[in-house]
Amino acid sequence: MTTANLIRPTRHGNAGICRGCWDQMHVPIPIRGVLALPFRAFGITRSKMNPNICTICERSFRTVKKQRHVTVDATILFADIRGFTALSERIDPVSLSEIVSVFQDRCAQAIWAHDGIVNKQMGDGLMAIFNFPIVSKDHAAAAVEAALDLQRLCKAALDDLRSMTGGPQGQAPGVGVGIHTGDVEIGEFSSFRSDFTAIGGAVNLAARLESRAAAGEILVSAETAARVPHLMDGAGERLLALKGFEQPVQVRVLAGT
Amino acid sequence: MTTANLIRPTRHGNAGICRGCWDQMHVPIPIRGVLALPFRAFGITRSKMNPNICTICERSFRTVKKQRHVTVDATILFADIRGFTALSERIDPVSLSEIVSVFQDRCAQAIWAHDGIVNKQMGDGLMAIFNFPIVSKDHAAAAVEAALDLQRLCKAALDDLRSMTGGPQGQAPGVGVGIHTGDVEIGEFSSFRSDFTAIGGAVNLAARLESRAAAGEILVSAETAARVPHLMDGAGERLLALKGFEQPVQVRVLAGT
Repeated sequence: MTTANLIRPTRHGNAGICRGCWDQMHVPIPIRGVLALPFRAFGITRSKMNPNICTICERSFRTVKKQRHVTVDATILFADIRGFTALSERIDPVSLSEIVSVFQDRCAQAIWAHDGIVNKQMGDGLMAIFNFPIVSKDHAAAAVEAALDLQRLCKAALDDLRSMTGGPQGQAPGVGVGIHTGDVEIGEFSSFRSDFTAIGGAVNLAARLESRAAAGEILVSAETAARVPHLMDGAGERLLALKGFEQPVQVRVLAGT
Repeated sequence: MTTANLIRPTRHGNAGICRGCWDQMHVPIPIRGVLALPFRAFGITRSKMNPNICTICERSFRTVKKQRHVTVDATILFADIRGFTALSERIDPVSLSEIVSVFQDRCAQAIWAHDGIVNKQMGDGLMAIFNFPIVSKDHAAAAVEAALDLQRLCKAALDDLRSMTGGPQGQAPGVGVGIHTGDVEIGEFSSFRSDFTAIGGAVNLAARLESRAAAGEILVSAETAARVPHLMDGAGERLLALKGFEQPVQVRVLAGT
Protein backbone atom coordinates (compact mmCIF):
# COMPACT_ATOMS: atom_id res chain seq x y z
CA MET A 1 0.00 0.00 0.00
CA THR A 2 1.37 3.42 -0.87
CA THR A 3 1.63 6.34 1.49
CA ALA A 4 -0.95 8.18 -0.58
CA ASN A 5 -3.57 5.65 0.51
CA LEU A 6 -2.69 6.03 4.17
CA ILE A 7 -3.31 9.77 4.24
CA ARG A 8 -6.72 11.28 4.85
CA PRO A 9 -5.89 14.91 5.70
CA THR A 10 -8.17 16.66 8.15
CA ARG A 11 -8.44 20.06 6.59
CA HIS A 12 -9.47 23.30 8.16
CA GLY A 13 -12.96 22.95 6.75
CA ASN A 14 -13.52 22.27 3.08
CA ALA A 15 -14.17 25.70 1.67
CA GLY A 16 -16.71 25.99 -1.14
CA ILE A 17 -14.97 29.03 -2.62
CA CYS A 18 -11.26 29.77 -2.88
CA ARG A 19 -10.26 31.40 0.39
CA GLY A 20 -7.22 33.02 -1.20
CA CYS A 21 -9.15 34.77 -3.99
CA TRP A 22 -11.76 35.85 -1.47
CA ASP A 23 -9.26 37.24 1.02
CA GLN A 24 -7.12 38.96 -1.62
CA MET A 25 -9.76 40.20 -4.11
CA HIS A 26 -13.20 39.50 -2.58
CA VAL A 27 -13.97 37.44 -5.66
CA PRO A 28 -15.81 34.14 -5.10
CA ILE A 29 -14.21 31.34 -7.15
CA PRO A 30 -16.04 28.01 -6.62
CA ILE A 31 -13.56 25.19 -5.91
CA ARG A 32 -15.93 22.44 -4.73
CA GLY A 33 -19.37 21.20 -5.81
CA VAL A 34 -21.31 21.66 -9.04
CA LEU A 35 -20.42 25.35 -9.38
CA ALA A 36 -16.74 24.42 -9.61
CA LEU A 37 -17.24 22.28 -12.74
CA PRO A 38 -17.20 25.06 -15.38
CA PHE A 39 -14.08 26.50 -13.74
CA ARG A 40 -12.42 23.10 -13.89
CA ALA A 41 -13.10 23.01 -17.63
CA PHE A 42 -10.91 26.12 -17.89
CA GLY A 43 -8.13 24.52 -15.85
CA ILE A 44 -8.96 26.32 -12.59
CA THR A 45 -8.67 23.69 -9.88
CA ARG A 46 -7.68 23.44 -6.24
CA SER A 47 -4.05 24.37 -5.59
CA LYS A 48 -1.48 21.84 -4.44
CA MET A 49 -0.22 24.46 -1.98
CA ASN A 50 -3.49 24.27 -0.01
CA PRO A 51 -6.75 22.59 -1.12
CA ASN A 52 -8.75 25.61 0.05
CA ILE A 53 -7.14 27.93 -2.50
CA CYS A 54 -7.25 27.68 -6.30
CA THR A 55 -4.78 27.76 -9.15
CA ILE A 56 -5.63 31.42 -9.82
CA CYS A 57 -4.05 32.44 -6.49
CA GLU A 58 -1.21 30.03 -7.10
CA ARG A 59 -0.22 30.96 -10.63
CA SER A 60 -1.65 34.41 -11.38
CA PHE A 61 -0.10 36.54 -8.68
CA ARG A 62 0.09 39.61 -10.91
CA THR A 63 -3.58 39.34 -11.80
CA VAL A 64 -4.58 38.85 -8.18
CA LYS A 65 -2.42 41.62 -6.70
CA LYS A 66 -2.02 43.88 -9.76
CA GLN A 67 1.68 44.15 -8.83
CA ARG A 68 4.79 42.02 -9.36
CA HIS A 69 5.32 41.66 -5.61
CA VAL A 70 3.98 42.96 -2.33
CA THR A 71 5.37 43.31 1.19
CA VAL A 72 3.39 41.17 3.63
CA ASP A 73 3.67 40.65 7.39
CA ALA A 74 3.80 36.86 7.41
CA THR A 75 5.07 33.90 9.37
CA ILE A 76 7.45 31.55 7.58
CA LEU A 77 7.94 27.94 8.67
CA PHE A 78 10.72 25.66 7.45
CA ALA A 79 10.83 21.95 8.31
CA ASP A 80 13.13 19.12 7.30
CA ILE A 81 14.11 15.59 8.21
CA ARG A 82 17.16 15.72 10.45
CA GLY A 83 20.11 13.51 9.55
CA PHE A 84 18.64 12.73 6.15
CA THR A 85 22.03 12.64 4.45
CA ALA A 86 23.41 10.06 6.88
CA LEU A 87 20.11 8.16 6.66
CA SER A 88 20.27 8.05 2.88
CA GLU A 89 23.63 6.27 3.06
CA ARG A 90 22.17 3.61 5.35
CA ILE A 91 18.80 2.61 3.94
CA ASP A 92 17.44 1.55 0.57
CA PRO A 93 15.82 3.99 -1.89
CA VAL A 94 12.31 2.56 -1.42
CA SER A 95 12.37 3.07 2.36
CA LEU A 96 13.90 6.51 1.86
CA SER A 97 11.11 7.56 -0.46
CA GLU A 98 8.48 6.23 1.97
CA ILE A 99 10.01 8.38 4.72
CA VAL A 100 9.98 11.48 2.51
CA SER A 101 6.36 10.84 1.47
CA VAL A 102 5.22 10.37 5.06
CA PHE A 103 7.05 13.55 6.10
CA GLN A 104 5.63 15.67 3.25
CA ASP A 105 2.08 14.43 3.70
CA ARG A 106 1.95 14.78 7.48
CA CYS A 107 3.50 18.26 7.35
CA ALA A 108 0.96 19.40 4.75
CA GLN A 109 -1.87 18.02 6.85
CA ALA A 110 -0.72 20.09 9.86
CA ILE A 111 -0.03 23.26 7.84
CA TRP A 112 -3.36 23.16 5.99
CA ALA A 113 -5.23 22.61 9.25
CA HIS A 114 -3.96 26.04 10.32
CA ASP A 115 -4.56 27.84 7.00
CA GLY A 116 -0.94 27.87 5.95
CA ILE A 117 0.26 26.98 2.46
CA VAL A 118 3.03 24.57 1.49
CA ASN A 119 4.83 26.97 -0.82
CA LYS A 120 7.93 24.85 -1.54
CA GLN A 121 8.79 21.20 -1.20
CA MET A 122 12.52 20.46 -1.47
CA GLY A 123 13.08 16.71 -1.10
CA ASP A 124 13.33 16.14 2.63
CA GLY A 125 12.33 19.73 3.44
CA LEU A 126 9.57 22.28 2.91
CA MET A 127 8.68 25.93 3.35
CA ALA A 128 5.24 27.13 4.48
CA ILE A 129 3.73 30.63 4.50
CA PHE A 130 1.07 31.80 6.96
CA ASN A 131 -1.01 34.91 6.15
CA PHE A 132 -0.86 34.71 2.36
CA PRO A 133 -2.98 34.20 0.34
CA ILE A 134 -5.34 33.12 3.13
CA VAL A 135 -5.38 36.04 5.55
CA SER A 136 -4.84 34.99 9.16
CA LYS A 137 -4.86 37.59 11.92
CA ASP A 138 -3.02 35.27 14.29
CA HIS A 139 -0.56 33.86 11.77
CA ALA A 140 2.26 33.54 14.29
CA ALA A 141 0.05 31.38 16.52
CA ALA A 142 -1.19 29.40 13.52
CA ALA A 143 2.38 28.59 12.49
CA VAL A 144 3.48 27.54 15.98
CA GLU A 145 0.38 25.37 16.41
CA ALA A 146 0.97 23.83 12.99
CA ALA A 147 4.56 23.07 14.01
CA LEU A 148 3.40 21.32 17.19
CA ASP A 149 0.87 19.25 15.20
CA LEU A 150 3.44 18.54 12.51
CA GLN A 151 5.96 17.22 15.03
CA ARG A 152 3.31 15.03 16.67
CA LEU A 153 2.02 13.63 13.35
CA CYS A 154 5.50 13.05 11.92
CA LYS A 155 6.74 11.38 15.08
CA ALA A 156 3.83 8.93 15.13
CA ALA A 157 4.19 8.13 11.43
CA LEU A 158 7.98 7.93 11.37
CA ASP A 159 8.03 5.73 14.48
CA ASP A 160 5.73 3.38 12.56
CA LEU A 161 8.33 3.25 9.80
CA ARG A 162 11.17 2.71 12.29
CA SER A 163 11.75 -0.87 11.19
CA MET A 164 12.89 0.45 7.81
CA THR A 165 15.80 2.31 9.36
CA GLY A 166 17.44 -0.81 10.74
CA GLY A 167 14.97 -2.83 12.76
CA PRO A 168 14.18 -2.33 16.45
CA GLN A 169 17.68 -0.95 17.14
CA GLY A 170 17.31 1.71 14.46
CA GLN A 171 16.48 5.24 15.56
CA ALA A 172 13.46 6.72 13.80
CA PRO A 173 14.29 9.90 11.89
CA GLY A 174 13.10 13.16 13.45
CA VAL A 175 12.03 16.53 12.11
CA GLY A 176 13.48 20.01 12.79
CA VAL A 177 11.40 23.18 12.47
CA GLY A 178 12.27 26.91 12.32
CA ILE A 179 9.70 29.73 12.52
CA HIS A 180 10.05 33.50 12.09
CA THR A 181 7.58 36.36 11.64
CA GLY A 182 8.29 39.57 9.76
CA ASP A 183 7.93 41.49 6.52
CA VAL A 184 8.56 39.31 3.47
CA GLU A 185 8.35 40.09 -0.22
CA ILE A 186 5.76 37.90 -1.93
CA GLY A 187 5.47 37.65 -5.70
CA GLU A 188 6.83 36.06 -8.84
CA PHE A 189 10.61 36.30 -9.02
CA SER A 190 11.46 34.81 -12.37
CA SER A 191 10.15 35.37 -15.84
CA PHE A 192 9.50 31.68 -16.53
CA ARG A 193 7.76 30.37 -13.37
CA SER A 194 4.33 31.63 -12.50
CA ASP A 195 3.93 30.32 -8.96
CA PHE A 196 4.51 32.92 -6.28
CA THR A 197 6.98 32.62 -3.42
CA ALA A 198 8.36 34.69 -0.54
CA ILE A 199 11.88 36.14 -0.33
CA GLY A 200 13.79 38.39 2.03
CA GLY A 201 15.83 38.37 5.20
CA ALA A 202 12.88 37.10 7.27
CA VAL A 203 12.60 34.02 5.05
CA ASN A 204 16.30 33.30 5.37
CA LEU A 205 16.19 33.66 9.16
CA ALA A 206 13.43 31.02 9.36
CA ALA A 207 15.56 28.72 7.17
CA ARG A 208 18.65 29.27 9.33
CA LEU A 209 16.68 28.51 12.50
CA GLU A 210 15.41 25.26 10.98
CA SER A 211 18.96 24.23 10.08
CA ARG A 212 19.89 24.56 13.78
CA ALA A 213 16.88 22.67 15.20
CA ALA A 214 17.57 19.17 16.51
CA ALA A 215 15.18 16.30 15.78
CA GLY A 216 11.85 17.02 17.48
CA GLU A 217 12.65 20.69 18.13
CA ILE A 218 10.85 23.84 17.01
CA LEU A 219 13.05 26.96 17.06
CA VAL A 220 10.92 30.10 17.30
CA SER A 221 12.40 33.56 16.71
CA ALA A 222 11.96 36.28 19.35
CA GLU A 223 9.67 38.18 16.93
CA THR A 224 7.31 35.22 16.59
CA ALA A 225 7.49 34.34 20.29
CA ALA A 226 6.54 37.90 21.29
CA ARG A 227 3.24 37.51 19.41
CA VAL A 228 2.33 34.17 21.02
CA PRO A 229 3.32 34.35 24.70
CA HIS A 230 0.53 31.85 25.53
CA LEU A 231 2.29 29.21 23.41
CA MET A 232 5.71 29.74 24.97
CA ASP A 233 5.01 28.19 28.38
CA GLY A 234 7.90 25.90 29.19
CA ALA A 235 9.85 26.88 26.07
CA GLY A 236 13.63 26.93 26.48
CA GLU A 237 15.92 29.75 25.43
CA ARG A 238 18.97 29.60 23.19
CA LEU A 239 21.42 32.18 21.80
CA LEU A 240 22.60 31.33 18.27
CA ALA A 241 25.32 32.77 16.08
CA LEU A 242 23.82 32.55 12.58
CA LYS A 243 25.51 32.98 9.21
CA GLY A 244 24.54 36.31 7.64
CA PHE A 245 23.44 37.88 10.94
CA GLU A 246 25.87 40.22 12.68
CA GLN A 247 24.38 39.84 16.15
CA PRO A 248 23.66 36.53 17.94
CA VAL A 249 19.97 35.67 17.66
CA GLN A 250 17.87 34.85 20.72
CA VAL A 251 15.39 32.03 20.09
CA ARG A 252 12.80 30.04 22.02
CA VAL A 253 12.91 26.26 21.80
CA LEU A 254 9.80 24.10 21.87
CA ALA A 255 10.10 20.35 22.07
CA GLY A 256 7.53 19.08 19.64
CA THR A 257 6.56 15.89 21.39
CA MET B 1 11.44 47.71 -17.81
CA THR B 2 11.12 44.39 -16.00
CA THR B 3 13.70 41.64 -15.96
CA ALA B 4 11.34 39.46 -17.98
CA ASN B 5 11.73 41.82 -20.91
CA LEU B 6 15.51 41.73 -20.73
CA ILE B 7 15.73 37.95 -21.12
CA ARG B 8 15.83 36.23 -24.46
CA PRO B 9 17.13 32.75 -23.58
CA THR B 10 19.30 30.99 -26.12
CA ARG B 11 17.98 27.48 -25.86
CA HIS B 12 19.58 24.27 -26.94
CA GLY B 13 17.47 24.26 -30.09
CA ASN B 14 13.72 24.69 -29.95
CA ALA B 15 12.48 21.11 -30.10
CA GLY B 16 9.27 20.45 -32.04
CA ILE B 17 8.40 17.48 -29.85
CA CYS B 18 8.87 17.01 -26.12
CA ARG B 19 12.40 15.70 -25.63
CA GLY B 20 11.53 14.21 -22.25
CA CYS B 21 8.58 12.14 -23.50
CA TRP B 22 10.66 11.05 -26.47
CA ASP B 23 13.69 10.03 -24.39
CA GLN B 24 11.62 8.31 -21.68
CA MET B 25 8.81 6.68 -23.72
CA HIS B 26 9.61 7.20 -27.40
CA VAL B 27 6.28 8.97 -27.72
CA PRO B 28 6.23 12.14 -29.87
CA ILE B 29 4.27 14.93 -28.11
CA PRO B 30 4.20 18.13 -30.20
CA ILE B 31 5.11 21.18 -28.11
CA ARG B 32 5.63 23.79 -30.83
CA GLY B 33 3.86 24.67 -34.09
CA VAL B 34 0.36 23.85 -35.34
CA LEU B 35 0.47 20.23 -34.17
CA ALA B 36 0.85 21.43 -30.57
CA LEU B 37 -2.49 23.30 -30.64
CA PRO B 38 -4.84 20.36 -29.91
CA PHE B 39 -2.55 19.30 -27.04
CA ARG B 40 -2.67 22.80 -25.63
CA ALA B 41 -6.46 22.59 -25.61
CA PHE B 42 -6.06 19.67 -23.20
CA GLY B 43 -3.72 21.60 -20.97
CA ILE B 44 -0.52 19.99 -22.27
CA THR B 45 1.99 22.80 -22.67
CA ARG B 46 5.71 23.37 -22.40
CA SER B 47 7.08 22.79 -18.90
CA LYS B 48 8.48 25.61 -16.78
CA MET B 49 11.34 23.29 -15.83
CA ASN B 50 12.65 23.34 -19.41
CA PRO B 51 10.84 24.67 -22.52
CA ASN B 52 11.87 21.56 -24.50
CA ILE B 53 9.85 19.22 -22.28
CA CYS B 54 6.09 19.19 -21.68
CA THR B 55 3.74 19.11 -18.72
CA ILE B 56 3.23 15.36 -19.19
CA CYS B 57 6.87 14.69 -18.19
CA GLU B 58 6.59 17.28 -15.46
CA ARG B 59 3.38 16.19 -13.76
CA SER B 60 2.66 12.61 -14.79
CA PHE B 61 5.77 10.80 -13.64
CA ARG B 62 3.88 7.60 -12.82
CA THR B 63 2.32 7.51 -16.29
CA VAL B 64 5.65 8.17 -17.97
CA LYS B 65 7.72 5.68 -15.94
CA LYS B 66 4.98 3.25 -14.82
CA GLN B 67 6.58 3.36 -11.35
CA ARG B 68 6.44 5.70 -8.35
CA HIS B 69 10.18 6.35 -8.56
CA VAL B 70 13.26 5.18 -10.39
CA THR B 71 17.00 5.19 -9.67
CA VAL B 72 18.86 7.33 -12.21
CA ASP B 73 22.55 8.11 -12.68
CA ALA B 74 22.29 11.89 -12.81
CA THR B 75 24.20 15.07 -12.13
CA ILE B 76 22.69 17.50 -9.63
CA LEU B 77 23.54 21.20 -9.58
CA PHE B 78 22.66 23.62 -6.78
CA ALA B 79 23.23 27.38 -7.09
CA ASP B 80 22.44 30.30 -4.84
CA ILE B 81 23.21 33.94 -4.28
CA ARG B 82 25.97 34.21 -1.70
CA GLY B 83 25.46 36.57 1.20
CA PHE B 84 21.78 37.01 0.34
CA THR B 85 20.73 37.26 3.98
CA ALA B 86 23.15 40.10 4.70
CA LEU B 87 22.20 41.71 1.39
CA SER B 88 18.51 41.56 2.24
CA GLU B 89 19.14 43.63 5.37
CA ARG B 90 20.91 46.29 3.34
CA ILE B 91 18.82 46.92 0.25
CA ASP B 92 15.19 47.65 -0.53
CA PRO B 93 12.69 44.92 -1.50
CA VAL B 94 12.39 46.10 -5.12
CA SER B 95 16.15 45.86 -5.72
CA LEU B 96 16.22 42.52 -3.91
CA SER B 97 13.53 41.09 -6.14
CA GLU B 98 15.32 42.37 -9.25
CA ILE B 99 18.47 40.55 -8.13
CA VAL B 100 16.55 37.31 -7.54
CA SER B 101 14.82 37.58 -10.94
CA VAL B 102 18.09 38.20 -12.75
CA PHE B 103 19.69 35.26 -10.94
CA GLN B 104 16.82 32.85 -11.65
CA ASP B 105 16.51 33.81 -15.30
CA ARG B 106 20.22 33.72 -16.11
CA CYS B 107 20.66 30.38 -14.34
CA ALA B 108 17.74 28.86 -16.26
CA GLN B 109 19.17 30.13 -19.53
CA ALA B 110 22.50 28.37 -18.84
CA ILE B 111 20.91 25.16 -17.56
CA TRP B 112 18.47 24.85 -20.49
CA ALA B 113 21.28 25.46 -22.98
CA HIS B 114 22.85 22.23 -21.69
CA ASP B 115 19.62 20.16 -21.54
CA GLY B 116 19.25 20.35 -17.76
CA ILE B 117 15.98 21.11 -16.01
CA VAL B 118 15.34 23.66 -13.29
CA ASN B 119 13.61 21.27 -10.92
CA LYS B 120 13.29 23.57 -7.88
CA GLN B 121 13.48 27.29 -7.35
CA MET B 122 13.85 28.32 -3.71
CA GLY B 123 14.00 32.12 -3.43
CA ASP B 124 17.66 32.97 -3.95
CA GLY B 125 18.56 29.36 -4.85
CA LEU B 126 17.74 26.57 -7.29
CA MET B 127 18.30 22.89 -8.00
CA ALA B 128 18.88 21.51 -11.50
CA ILE B 129 18.91 17.91 -12.76
CA PHE B 130 20.94 16.69 -15.74
CA ASN B 131 20.02 13.36 -17.43
CA PHE B 132 16.32 13.31 -16.59
CA PRO B 133 13.91 13.49 -18.32
CA ILE B 134 16.12 14.58 -21.24
CA VAL B 135 18.74 11.84 -21.52
CA SER B 136 22.28 13.17 -21.74
CA LYS B 137 25.20 10.77 -22.08
CA ASP B 138 27.67 13.40 -20.88
CA HIS B 139 25.52 14.83 -18.10
CA ALA B 140 28.48 15.56 -15.83
CA ALA B 141 30.09 17.67 -18.55
CA ALA B 142 26.75 19.33 -19.34
CA ALA B 143 26.33 20.36 -15.70
CA VAL B 144 29.87 21.74 -15.36
CA GLU B 145 29.54 23.67 -18.62
CA ALA B 146 26.16 25.00 -17.50
CA ALA B 147 27.78 26.12 -14.23
CA LEU B 148 30.53 27.99 -16.07
CA ASP B 149 27.95 29.70 -18.31
CA LEU B 150 25.73 30.45 -15.34
CA GLN B 151 28.55 32.14 -13.43
CA ARG B 152 29.49 34.19 -16.49
CA LEU B 153 25.90 35.26 -17.22
CA CYS B 154 25.08 36.03 -13.58
CA LYS B 155 28.27 38.00 -13.07
CA ALA B 156 27.58 40.19 -16.09
CA ALA B 157 23.95 40.77 -15.10
CA LEU B 158 24.59 41.28 -11.38
CA ASP B 159 27.46 43.67 -12.07
CA ASP B 160 24.97 45.69 -14.12
CA LEU B 161 22.72 45.85 -11.06
CA ARG B 162 25.63 46.78 -8.78
CA SER B 163 24.39 50.31 -8.25
CA MET B 164 21.39 48.86 -6.40
CA THR B 165 23.59 47.37 -3.72
CA GLY B 166 25.01 50.68 -2.58
CA GLY B 167 26.34 52.62 -5.52
CA PRO B 168 29.84 52.33 -6.98
CA GLN B 169 31.28 51.29 -3.61
CA GLY B 170 28.84 48.42 -3.24
CA GLN B 171 30.05 44.93 -4.02
CA ALA B 172 27.88 43.07 -6.56
CA PRO B 173 26.40 39.85 -5.15
CA GLY B 174 27.98 36.63 -6.40
CA VAL B 175 26.74 33.10 -6.98
CA GLY B 176 27.95 29.81 -5.45
CA VAL B 177 27.51 26.46 -7.23
CA GLY B 178 27.81 22.81 -6.09
CA ILE B 179 27.78 19.81 -8.46
CA HIS B 180 27.73 16.08 -7.79
CA THR B 181 27.09 13.00 -9.93
CA GLY B 182 25.63 9.73 -8.67
CA ASP B 183 22.55 7.58 -8.28
CA VAL B 184 19.50 9.58 -7.25
CA GLU B 185 15.91 8.54 -6.70
CA ILE B 186 13.58 10.39 -9.07
CA GLY B 187 9.80 10.34 -8.67
CA GLU B 188 6.84 11.82 -6.84
CA PHE B 189 7.37 11.89 -3.10
CA SER B 190 4.12 13.22 -1.75
CA SER B 191 0.52 12.34 -2.35
CA PHE B 192 -0.57 15.91 -3.08
CA ARG B 193 2.10 17.26 -5.44
CA SER B 194 2.44 15.79 -8.89
CA ASP B 195 5.72 17.30 -10.05
CA PHE B 196 8.68 14.95 -9.81
CA THR B 197 11.91 15.66 -7.95
CA ALA B 198 15.15 13.90 -7.00
CA ILE B 199 16.10 12.76 -3.51
CA GLY B 200 18.96 10.81 -1.91
CA GLY B 201 22.43 11.24 -0.51
CA ALA B 202 23.81 12.39 -3.87
CA VAL B 203 21.34 15.29 -3.94
CA ASN B 204 22.28 16.32 -0.42
CA LEU B 205 25.99 16.21 -1.21
CA ALA B 206 25.48 18.61 -4.13
CA ALA B 207 23.53 20.93 -1.79
CA ARG B 208 26.25 20.78 0.86
CA LEU B 209 28.94 21.60 -1.71
CA GLU B 210 26.96 24.60 -2.88
CA SER B 211 26.64 25.86 0.69
CA ARG B 212 30.46 25.88 0.93
CA ALA B 213 31.14 27.60 -2.40
CA ALA B 214 32.29 31.22 -2.21
CA ALA B 215 30.91 33.85 -4.60
CA GLY B 216 32.02 32.97 -8.13
CA GLU B 217 33.10 29.44 -7.22
CA ILE B 218 31.91 26.08 -8.57
CA LEU B 219 32.63 23.16 -6.22
CA VAL B 220 32.71 19.88 -8.15
CA SER B 221 32.69 16.52 -6.35
CA ALA B 222 35.42 13.96 -7.10
CA GLU B 223 32.81 11.71 -8.77
CA THR B 224 31.79 14.43 -11.22
CA ALA B 225 35.38 15.59 -11.78
CA ALA B 226 36.47 12.04 -12.67
CA ARG B 227 34.01 12.04 -15.58
CA VAL B 228 35.14 15.39 -16.99
CA PRO B 229 38.95 15.54 -16.71
CA HIS B 230 39.05 17.85 -19.75
CA LEU B 231 37.07 20.47 -17.82
CA MET B 232 39.27 20.32 -14.72
CA ASP B 233 42.36 22.04 -16.15
CA GLY B 234 43.50 24.59 -13.62
CA ALA B 235 40.87 23.57 -11.06
CA GLY B 236 41.97 23.86 -7.45
CA GLU B 237 41.57 21.17 -4.80
CA ARG B 238 39.92 21.42 -1.39
CA LEU B 239 39.22 18.97 1.43
CA LEU B 240 35.91 19.67 3.19
CA ALA B 241 34.38 18.29 6.37
CA LEU B 242 30.66 18.16 5.55
CA LYS B 243 27.68 17.66 7.86
CA GLY B 244 26.25 14.15 7.42
CA PHE B 245 29.42 12.73 5.85
CA GLU B 246 31.76 10.71 8.06
CA GLN B 247 34.86 11.21 5.91
CA PRO B 248 36.20 14.53 4.64
CA VAL B 249 35.17 15.09 1.02
CA GLN B 250 37.73 15.96 -1.66
CA VAL B 251 36.44 18.51 -4.15
CA ARG B 252 37.69 20.40 -7.18
CA VAL B 253 37.19 24.16 -7.30
CA LEU B 254 36.52 26.06 -10.50
CA ALA B 255 36.45 29.84 -10.48
CA GLY B 256 33.51 30.71 -12.64
CA THR B 257 34.76 33.94 -14.08
